[in-house]
Amino acid sequence: MKKWLLTAAIAASFTAQADEGMWQPHQLPAMADMLKEKGLEIDAKSISKLTEFPMNAVISLGGCTASFVSPKGLVVTNHHCAYGSIQYNSTPEKNLLKEGFLAKTYQEELPATPGSRVYVTEAVTDVTSKVKNGQMAKVGNDFYAGIEQQEKALVAECEQEAGYRCQVYSFHGGLEYYLVKQLEIRDVRLTYNPAGSVGKYGGDIDNWMWPRHTGDFSFYRAYVGKDGKPADFHKDNVPYEPKSFLKVSAKGVSDGDFVMVAGYPGRTNRYRTANEVENQFEWAYPEGKVLRERLIEIIKDTAPEGSDERIKYESAIAGLANYAKNFTSMIEFYGKSTMLDDRKSLEQKLAKWIKADKKRQSKYGEVLVQLDKLIAKGEQGQERDLLMSYMGYSTMINASDSLYRLANEKTLPDMEREPGYQERDMTQFISGMERIERRYAASVDKAMLTDLIIKYAALPSDQRLTAFDKAFGIDNNFDQAKLIKTLDTMYANTTLSDKETRMAWINKSVADFKKSNDPFIQYAVSTYEERMAREKARKQLAGDLMKVRPQYMDAIIAYNRELGKPVYADANSSLRVSIGNVKGYSPQDGLVAVPFTRLEGIVAKDTGVDPFDAPAKQLELIKQKQYGDYYVKSIDSVPVNFLSTLDTTGGNSGSPTLNGRAELVGLLFDGVYESIIGDWGYDDQSNRSIQVDSRYMLWVMEHLDNADNLLAEMEIVK
Amino acid sequence: MKKWLLTAAIAASFTAQADEGMWQPHQLPAMADMLKEKGLEIDAKSISKLTEFPMNAVISLGGCTASFVSPKGLVVTNHHCAYGSIQYNSTPEKNLLKEGFLAKTYQEELPATPGSRVYVTEAVTDVTSKVKNGQMAKVGNDFYAGIEQQEKALVAECEQEAGYRCQVYSFHGGLEYYLVKQLEIRDVRLTYNPAGSVGKYGGDIDNWMWPRHTGDFSFYRAYVGKDGKPADFHKDNVPYEPKSFLKVSAKGVSDGDFVMVAGYPGRTNRYRTANEVENQFEWAYPEGKVLRERLIEIIKDTAPEGSDERIKYESAIAGLANYAKNFTSMIEFYGKSTMLDDRKSLEQKLAKWIKADKKRQSKYGEVLVQLDKLIAKGEQGQERDLLMSYMGYSTMINASDSLYRLANEKTLPDMEREPGYQERDMTQFISGMERIERRYAASVDKAMLTDLIIKYAALPSDQRLTAFDKAFGIDNNFDQAKLIKTLDTMYANTTLSDKETRMAWINKSVADFKKSNDPFIQYAVSTYEERMAREKARKQLAGDLMKVRPQYMDAIIAYNRELGKPVYADANSSLRVSIGNVKGYSPQDGLVAVPFTRLEGIVAKDTGVDPFDAPAKQLELIKQKQYGDYYVKSIDSVPVNFLSTLDTTGGNSGSPTLNGRAELVGLLFDGVYESIIGDWGYDDQSNRSIQVDSRYMLWVMEHLDNADNLLAEMEIVK
Repeated sequence: MKKWLLTAAIAASFTAQADEGMWQPHQLPAMADMLKEKGLEIDAKSISKLTEFPMNAVISLGGCTASFVSPKGLVVTNHHCAYGSIQYNSTPEKNLLKEGFLAKTYQEELPATPGSRVYVTEAVTDVTSKVKNGQMAKVGNDFYAGIEQQEKALVAECEQEAGYRCQVYSFHGGLEYYLVKQLEIRDVRLTYNPAGSVGKYGGDIDNWMWPRHTGDFSFYRAYVGKDGKPADFHKDNVPYEPKSFLKVSAKGVSDGDFVMVAGYPGRTNRYRTANEVENQFEWAYPEGKVLRERLIEIIKDTAPEGSDERIKYESAIAGLANYAKNFTSMIEFYGKSTMLDDRKSLEQKLAKWIKADKKRQSKYGEVLVQLDKLIAKGEQGQERDLLMSYMGYSTMINASDSLYRLANEKTLPDMEREPGYQERDMTQFISGMERIERRYAASVDKAMLTDLIIKYAALPSDQRLTAFDKAFGIDNNFDQAKLIKTLDTMYANTTLSDKETRMAWINKSVADFKKSNDPFIQYAVSTYEERMAREKARKQLAGDLMKVRPQYMDAIIAYNRELGKPVYADANSSLRVSIGNVKGYSPQDGLVAVPFTRLEGIVAKDTGVDPFDAPAKQLELIKQKQYGDYYVKSIDSVPVNFLSTLDTTGGNSGSPTLNGRAELVGLLFDGVYESIIGDWGYDDQSNRSIQVDSRYMLWVMEHLDNADNLLAEMEIVK
Repeated sequence: MKKWLLTAAIAASFTAQADEGMWQPHQLPAMADMLKEKGLEIDAKSISKLTEFPMNAVISLGGCTASFVSPKGLVVTNHHCAYGSIQYNSTPEKNLLKEGFLAKTYQEELPATPGSRVYVTEAVTDVTSKVKNGQMAKVGNDFYAGIEQQEKALVAECEQEAGYRCQVYSFHGGLEYYLVKQLEIRDVRLTYNPAGSVGKYGGDIDNWMWPRHTGDFSFYRAYVGKDGKPADFHKDNVPYEPKSFLKVSAKGVSDGDFVMVAGYPGRTNRYRTANEVENQFEWAYPEGKVLRERLIEIIKDTAPEGSDERIKYESAIAGLANYAKNFTSMIEFYGKSTMLDDRKSLEQKLAKWIKADKKRQSKYGEVLVQLDKLIAKGEQGQERDLLMSYMGYSTMINASDSLYRLANEKTLPDMEREPGYQERDMTQFISGMERIERRYAASVDKAMLTDLIIKYAALPSDQRLTAFDKAFGIDNNFDQAKLIKTLDTMYANTTLSDKETRMAWINKSVADFKKSNDPFIQYAVSTYEERMAREKARKQLAGDLMKVRPQYMDAIIAYNRELGKPVYADANSSLRVSIGNVKGYSPQDGLVAVPFTRLEGIVAKDTGVDPFDAPAKQLELIKQKQYGDYYVKSIDSVPVNFLSTLDTTGGNSGSPTLNGRAELVGLLFDGVYESIIGDWGYDDQSNRSIQVDSRYMLWVMEHLDNADNLLAEMEIVK
């Protein structure tokens, strides 16, 4: 019934919503007429079928999206999505980040960073009633645990089949649940990445910016065992043969053309309350921005450019900087927007609508008040909670906490363990512990942790944590010099930084941990109960929210239905489809961002200094106007990046942007600065996604990097 | 003959040149067809007649352009052109810069800053043969002095008529000379200026930038004696009644419309040699930028914001910052351009063309070599010369030098004196000395001079000046502390800062100066001979250049004539007309600057902090969409500023931008950042002038400032 309402509402008024919406594939057939009118040439039903072309060519890397582009398991995604693997294979002597990499044969391909996966979605099933079955009478922690238990059971059942990974996704804050079944390919290899000065051209300066000239693409290949089933890395493994793959367009798109994107958007907050908006924009983003900028400063000060330590932390810097800029934009555009007032007025209207009808009143009358009460509760102690969460940037804190947690979880039956610590999670857990080898430097780790603990120590005593205080010798007369001495000793004496020692802890017992004299193990043991108590309180609240928020969403959906407005769920890392057009926008009164950038823009931006240091050969090719087959008359050049109205967010990175025939015309890799706040509300005028144009990808491969072997392997539509 | 060649070439190929060119009015009739086709509705001949509408309404303020806009001598110009007068009438208690000013009656009008003038051009006469008569056999200093003498004689003859100011302008480096006769109105009053947060909205940050939202306009009124003749300020004076005045358009222009601008562009360098280009961009601009930025830093450090000293130096800061930014752009775009290579190749082509013909060879064969030799000579000691010229920013140095120079010049007959020290210059000289009262603070003056002398002292000893060294106690073992002590004593003991004392020196003799124990007078006396010797050397070189450069220009003109290319003279502060269209541009690949900004852009930029702190009333009017009669449908707002292809430069500030019927549609006040380098070469793609739209001026006057009296006085075309 509920689903019928959703799709009916969508069919009735979708066009009024312009290009807003991250649609679940099953919602698409109801929009077939609109899609056809907008420019979709293939059958709308086919997009809704996960096991058919083109959707079965769209895959998840866990955090990024990618797609198959050859019958031999060739995978294209963003350069920044393959960044970890490129970094993993780089050394100061042979820096693939800097120089680029091309395997001319299968044999030359390099293993991706440990834990790399290709997930092929094969089924999505509505399991709402199964998940909620027998749970609805429970509250708080019991409800949370009950739902989690039901989810685990469904996952376990689903994962009976070898080589599959399953997950239950919650929609509308717990109103609906879907079980997603994905083939898990675990032998992933790096096939090709352009030089960093192409793939990351513009770097952090251009990140989230337009005009853009970034060649943000790289290629992996998925491998399976000789039996065609997922297998661990082995030299005898063979390229995976996907059921289908995307053709790559050498013709590309023009201004105004229809485009769609399929991918795994991570998280949006389009249905948050006014109180949540206010706290997020007026407290959480400003605080987060300051912390991130400080950590970047610490890393740069501690690990000078060119040092081995710096290479280890480039990825951490990129991640920190990415969201520091994100938060800056959030704060800036929130200040200029009427978002808070709009939400308040929306809530008033909703409250009025509920009050106007007795049935509604009895169903939703208390929902908003209850929700606000729970939200306020969650904000208590948030200064401390934020600092504690950023302490996760310290590998020593993170590793010791996780290892001791694992020892504790192992005392429970597998099904009762915390997600992340079940047998099914062990491969990821182990590769995470291995990866530390290439991501950790004691000097940087210590500097970051010192700074965060100093901030923590300045909190009022009633916010501080007794066991944590004790572990680092903190009291109301905080002595910074003493803390530094304590941490010096801890880092000098810990052996967790040694790979073998660290890996050995994976299999040790709680008793082993309690006996240890490793200072970080001792820290993790002595603070464990306190952490668990905080986690329990969080789950209690989460359980309460999981009962109230679905009611709130139910009210919102019912209210919007009466207004004839469609409702799609907030992004939750599950497969979605967005529909839009190639289109520019006005970033500022008096300026227009046109939808395409050109090769010549690379030369104009180039300073010879990172991140504007395109390869000399590339600059020369452009100056000589060697456009090859990718010349576009209307812009008198080869297009580099393009803008679209597609509604996307983080997690969509690497998503194939498709034309009406489902040919790959670009890879989505970013949004413009003005659309960052779009995670909280889509705006037709300023929400724009940025794609690397397929013609630029092909031009780089053909003219700059001579990737003839890959061009021959792909099916290119001329 | 020569003139015929010029106009013939122009008529033949002007359109190929797009909108490049700052034309002498007499060149315009030959372009009548082109002008008509482009959109000129009035007779092209009328623009060439200085004593007819509209040219007789276009006036000079000396450094800026302005125009009459009422039968009662009402003058409109840029806010930044009236800045000195607004500042002159401001005190910390009544800050007209901040609050704005509107005289509702003649009586409420305020005297402009001393020395303010309105110059009405009444005649321009070709005096080439008169100036050169009998001089061509001379060389060096003799030639320079001879030409100067002829010019002085012509000026003296012209100024026989009371109330007139005359000047001889050199064109093409001395190829042609024109005598310009201007009515000199010397009672100028401030009538109206909007608040600084309108008139200077965007301040130095937006200076030379697009998108722009600056209300850069203000009003003066010209007064004359009861007899209608120019007179000194007197309460019985009456408003000047100009022969004609411009109507102000309330309809304005649209994208693509014809526009023209008449004004007094100061200086361009479109015909400089490759060697001059190289030295300017690779040495002079970088050095000047550093010096200017340093002086700004010194002023800001010494005179904190809000202090009385700071108000005195706001104008100096604005001037320094303006050209620091100018130089920065010059350096940036030179680095991206092929200007130097282009000039070199042009010179090679010219040399080849000369060599290809015996007549040409005998006429121009040695010109380029000779010119380059003289240019190289001029660059000797330029590090020192630049520092000495920046010492002019020290009022004490400047005033003492000028006063002692005056005493010396007075020993000569008036006609033999240096320009600037003749009787005709005395009013300006005196008001300059008066103005110091509101522009000088010893603390700032000393800090700037100290810094410059420290830089000077670091020069190699063969570049330093014996008398100057001695005056400030500088030797090869420079002691900074000693210099600071010397300067402390000088500033403590000088009485030049006292207005009466300073004014008294204007009438003293050389002997009086030699007897003085004022430390700055002693400095001026002891270094005088050395300064004169340097000046003589400069004139020697200038004289040689005045012989060679005209030959070079003659060759260029002849060469271009064969290529069918028109030649206009470099700007020289004389009256010119530029022709163009309303048009945007692309500042960067992927971005387009559209030709109009809107009221809403002001709100979007506003931070509440200077320079983005529009008046609260203005923000409110915009939010309420109170567009009045000035609404433009195509942009759904009132236009604020607009872009045009008009070829302009500094000195054009305040120029009336006219439509095809010669109605005022805007005031030119700036160029975009990319076009700063246009002083060295016009580029169709990026040369854009910025105008404040007449509709915005009228909107501010009507809705924000209630300047009904002025609106009633002007003739507004609806």
